Amino acid sequence: MNYYGEYVTRLIEQFGKLPGIGGRSAQRLAFYVLNMPKENALALAQSITDARERVKYCSHCCNLTDTDPCPICSSSKRNKNQIMVVESPRDMAAYEKTNDFRGVYHVLHGLISPMDGIAPEDIRIRELLDRINGDTEEVILATSSTIEGDTTAMYIARLIGLRAENVRVSRIAKGVPVGGELEYVDQVTLAQAFKSRLDMNIGKDSDNEDN
Amino acid sequence: MNYYGEYVTRLIEQFGKLPGIGGRSAQRLAFYVLNMPKENALALAQSITDARERVKYCSHCCNLTDTDPCPICSSSKRNKNQIMVVESPRDMAAYEKTNDFRGVYHVLHGLISPMDGIAPEDIRIRELLDRINGDTEEVILATSSTIEGDTTAMYIARLIGLRAENVRVSRIAKGVPVGGELEYVDQVTLAQAFKSRLDMNIGKDSDNEDN
Repeated sequence: MNYYGEYVTRLIEQFGKLPGIGGRSAQRLAFYVLNMPKENALALAQSITDARERVKYCSHCCNLTDTDPCPICSSSKRNKNQIMVVESPRDMAAYEKTNDFRGVYHVLHGLISPMDGIAPEDIRIRELLDRINGDTEEVILATSSTIEGDTTAMYIARLIGLRAENVRVSRIAKGVPVGGELEYVDQVTLAQAFKSRLDMNIGKDSDNEDN
Repeated sequence: MNYYGEYVTRLIEQFGKLPGIGGRSAQRLAFYVLNMPKENALALAQSITDARERVKYCSHCCNLTDTDPCPICSSSKRNKNQIMVVESPRDMAAYEKTNDFRGVYHVLHGLISPMDGIAPEDIRIRELLDRINGDTEEVILATSSTIEGDTTAMYIARLIGLRAENVRVSRIAKGVPVGGELEYVDQVTLAQAFKSRLDMNIGKDSDNEDN
């Protein structure tokens, strides 16, 4: 499809390499870029170059950042002894939006997945273990509730148990999503929600049941 | 959402400005770019810059091109006196893929659309009229079969009729798509296909009915 000349064709090819962008979307994006004001197109190109040249991994939490340590790891308001382990920077951002967690993060950049050839040494588990010391209070395993997420959480929990048995290791709860209509929730989740049920005898102490 | 630092945030914003790319897609694209090999990311940025800096409009057909005139307009194999009028370079490419048309194109870069504030002078109609001369045999109006496409075709047909009445002006046929199941074709198209029916008395001459 060289109806457009070299540069347009190359631009279409480049867009087509991005995930979730097929041939037609790549064409549409390329023509959009060709028709947008020149300074906007150059700003897009510059932001790609800048991000790729200047963004690095935080030496503490492995998150992507312009500054090392990253803003969260260098903030005096965050509890450095409570570490939430997440798969990706996006998961970190999702938790930050809740405004509920005041500890720090550790970004694994992947999950253990033998099917995809991703072994424990391919993700940032070593860096996590290196961070854990006598001051560490808790490691919260906030990987997805998938086979890979559960496997990774279990693997990390065992390693920490072997090395630092005084550290509390927790896993985010599984259950019915808040606001979710029960009839649309899948059976495995419902079973899990039943298994992890909490007492709510009003007026008494309520505690998490063992699961 | 400045959880990512300045450069990553700016990259997400830039991707989010592209058509059809929402917040989540922009994030996914940004992290994909951050994780891809550096040279690929820089190649993407370079192809945007190159395309924006070097691609221009063909002075004959108004198509986007690196060379002026464009490869089609400068080809000795194309009939310069048969001009197919299309809305966009993509429509031009669609017709080129058929390998059926050996004339040249004229790209309007839009359709007349009063609802969107696009007037005849906003698209390349003036340039089309300037190309039509005593040698021109036919102008084929190949705009979409939409209100805007039909309006634009009719507008151009009238203008050509006023200025160059010897030029044949045609409109691509409307009818049932080839390979389309009849029961799924909409009523307006079916009615149009009936109105534009062709004789097929085997052995006799068959001609297009008036419509």
